[in-house]
Amino acid sequence: MELKKTGDIKFVKGGVCAAKGFKANGVQCGLSHAGASVTAKKNDLALIVADKDCAAAAVYTTNKVKGAPILVTKKHISNGRARAVIVNSVNANTCNPDGVEKAEKMCQLAADELGLKPEDIIVASTGVIGQVLPIEPIAKGIKPLAEGLSYNGNAAALEAIMTTDTRPKEVAVEFEIDGRICTMGGMLKGSGMIHPNMATTLTFITTDADISPEMLQRALDDVVKVTLNRVSVDGDTSTNDMVCIMASGTAGNKTVTKEDGDFGIFQNALYNIMLNLARMMARDGEGATKLVECAVSGAENDKTAEIVAKSVITSSLFKSMIFGEDANAGRIYCAIGYADADVDISKVSFDMVSKGGRIALGKDGCVLEFDEEEAKKVLAEEEIQVLITLGSGGGKAVCWGCDLTYDYVKINGDYRS
Amino acid sequence: MELKKTGDIKFVKGGVCAAKGFKANGVQCGLSHAGASVTAKKNDLALIVADKDCAAAAVYTTNKVKGAPILVTKKHISNGRARAVIVNSVNANTCNPDGVEKAEKMCQLAADELGLKPEDIIVASTGVIGQVLPIEPIAKGIKPLAEGLSYNGNAAALEAIMTTDTRPKEVAVEFEIDGRICTMGGMLKGSGMIHPNMATTLTFITTDADISPEMLQRALDDVVKVTLNRVSVDGDTSTNDMVCIMASGTAGNKTVTKEDGDFGIFQNALYNIMLNLARMMARDGEGATKLVECAVSGAENDKTAEIVAKSVITSSLFKSMIFGEDANAGRIYCAIGYADADVDISKVSFDMVSKGGRIALGKDGCVLEFDEEEAKKVLAEEEIQVLITLGSGGGKAVCWGCDLTYDYVKINGDYRS
Repeated sequence: MELKKTGDIKFVKGGVCAAKGFKANGVQCGLSHAGASVTAKKNDLALIVADKDCAAAAVYTTNKVKGAPILVTKKHISNGRARAVIVNSVNANTCNPDGVEKAEKMCQLAADELGLKPEDIIVASTGVIGQVLPIEPIAKGIKPLAEGLSYNGNAAALEAIMTTDTRPKEVAVEFEIDGRICTMGGMLKGSGMIHPNMATTLTFITTDADISPEMLQRALDDVVKVTLNRVSVDGDTSTNDMVCIMASGTAGNKTVTKEDGDFGIFQNALYNIMLNLARMMARDGEGATKLVECAVSGAENDKTAEIVAKSVITSSLFKSMIFGEDANAGRIYCAIGYADADVDISKVSFDMVSKGGRIALGKDGCVLEFDEEEAKKVLAEEEIQVLITLGSGGGKAVCWGCDLTYDYVKINGDYRS
Repeated sequence: MELKKTGDIKFVKGGVCAAKGFKANGVQCGLSHAGASVTAKKNDLALIVADKDCAAAAVYTTNKVKGAPILVTKKHISNGRARAVIVNSVNANTCNPDGVEKAEKMCQLAADELGLKPEDIIVASTGVIGQVLPIEPIAKGIKPLAEGLSYNGNAAALEAIMTTDTRPKEVAVEFEIDGRICTMGGMLKGSGMIHPNMATTLTFITTDADISPEMLQRALDDVVKVTLNRVSVDGDTSTNDMVCIMASGTAGNKTVTKEDGDFGIFQNALYNIMLNLARMMARDGEGATKLVECAVSGAENDKTAEIVAKSVITSSLFKSMIFGEDANAGRIYCAIGYADADVDISKVSFDMVSKGGRIALGKDGCVLEFDEEEAKKVLAEEEIQVLITLGSGGGKAVCWGCDLTYDYVKINGDYRS
């Protein structure tokens, strides 16, 4: 699939508050869970609220276990409209007998406080699966949360959606449609339980551009495929993943209603938002010290290229070798060889590239002799590219991942406490 | 698939030398590879030799990158016969331009020394992928290796096939066919780059039972599916995996030539050999501290049960939680939910069991409240079972895995040096 991407963009500050007419806030309402030694010492509840009704679209996890908030959000935006987002961390409100009831209650609390209807609210939760969500802290926290809403509240909201994230992840861009300056901004939470081929992690995007709900969903569906769905941290697909976008239309452009040039400009902006968030997520993979970009070309088709790239970035042996900065090229052939795709190994070659240089490691199915010192220089960098050519066609794909480290094991051996 | 399994077995000592008429030996010939700081300080070259010509069968890796020894062995046993095995560790002789030539040369060296034809020899290599195999150490080592062959040489041979293995893995059984006592023994190498759905790791099995090559292959094919193919350490499928079996017939039973009761007895013996080797391999997974057995029942069919069991044991988050002894039950639902199988999550329940007790963690799609102290007792043990019921039929499967630990990362971050 070739994305429609046209127009210039300019990166700006402000995350989900960058676009005109979006307020946000985050507070520490005091959520905790069984097995935790302390309650979170950070914000754990956030709101994003638009000044006016928005077109809304979302993509959800493909896991058959779906968090209760996912089910409720699906229902609420089935009309393509939304006005606000309420989201908590610490507790995922998933695999609970009363999950849907609690998620509905969160919407009701937000709606009451904001003077909206529950159906106007998008709800999301992230954290430990399978523990009943205590609603009291949320009921108590909603008032100060709403009272503190501001056009500069993106950082407070962003803190509230983080779990094992070590870095806040947000980005915003300006672009022009129909002579009007539009703005789009997004924030993302996620560093573990992340695997491609599904909407990955919690991502919230706002824009003041005017676009129909149908075209908003179309743009999101297309962009997710080549950004968030191309990231893997650990091969685990979360139960609560969701990316949602609200478009208020206050920028005043002619409403985008078909796949024309304006749609291309909009999609280009969205692509740049989500590409950057995807890369930030891979770089901040649980325990990760390095970002890996695997670009496959010369495939029979794009799908084959994607399967091969994902096979490499998800290989535990490959990921360990990146952490160890050890140019064990055979492992790359190994991961290409077990990818579920039609590949002629005797035509496969690859290089590794970083700021430290470029080194050819494999050619026509054989590992090359290489200078260990040069390889060390390439692998010592924080961002590393693996460029693979399959020699069989014009298909290509790029995927992102990270290294596998002691800290990944540490973080996940004791996540609850 | 239901295995034909009848008859009694008795565990005996001797590994690949347990069966009458099989000699073995291992020596340190001094193989090394680029990037290694020292040569191996252990045996690295082994022979297993039968006193007489044997029926032979093998199952190979499904990786499209196949080690050169695999290609040569396939050719050599295409007639269903073999007499000896030569195998080295340290260097996998894979992804090299001259790999097949070197593998043939290894067979030639062994054949010359043993007075056999190269076509009588099974060849295998394991170790680093993509480095040219130096043939000189093997040419020099073959003479002392052959001269030292003995009916008690199993331990020396076993040491020679180990790489990151921390424990020798061998097992042997006696059984009775047609009034004759038969013996079968096997040894296995493998602890990383191990994933189900293909022949896994290097395994060598010998028996003095009399069986046709066709039935030998049939028995092996069936047993591999429910033993070695049900183990995952890290989701990586090796390029050099092979399990081979030689049956000399010196026990004197009437040759097994069809799927009758005698075949059931033979297959039962083989199943017990390979089941034990498979469990040993999972327990000795790279860096592992615990063996995990995941038994799924109540599935629509056996295939669904297998897919679900594999999804759980391969989940990095599940494996990390086992290491951390943290009963994070939501992760088990999560891994079941993203398994590529038709599962009604609202009917899924599971318990965890060990010598430390039994604890119900999930029921009908919801995580149960449980006593943290009881859970800790269950998880503190070295062998842990996860019993999952899908509530949808009579299909079942058992798979084996291990925990994900700091040491896995350490071992694989710096495997070559």
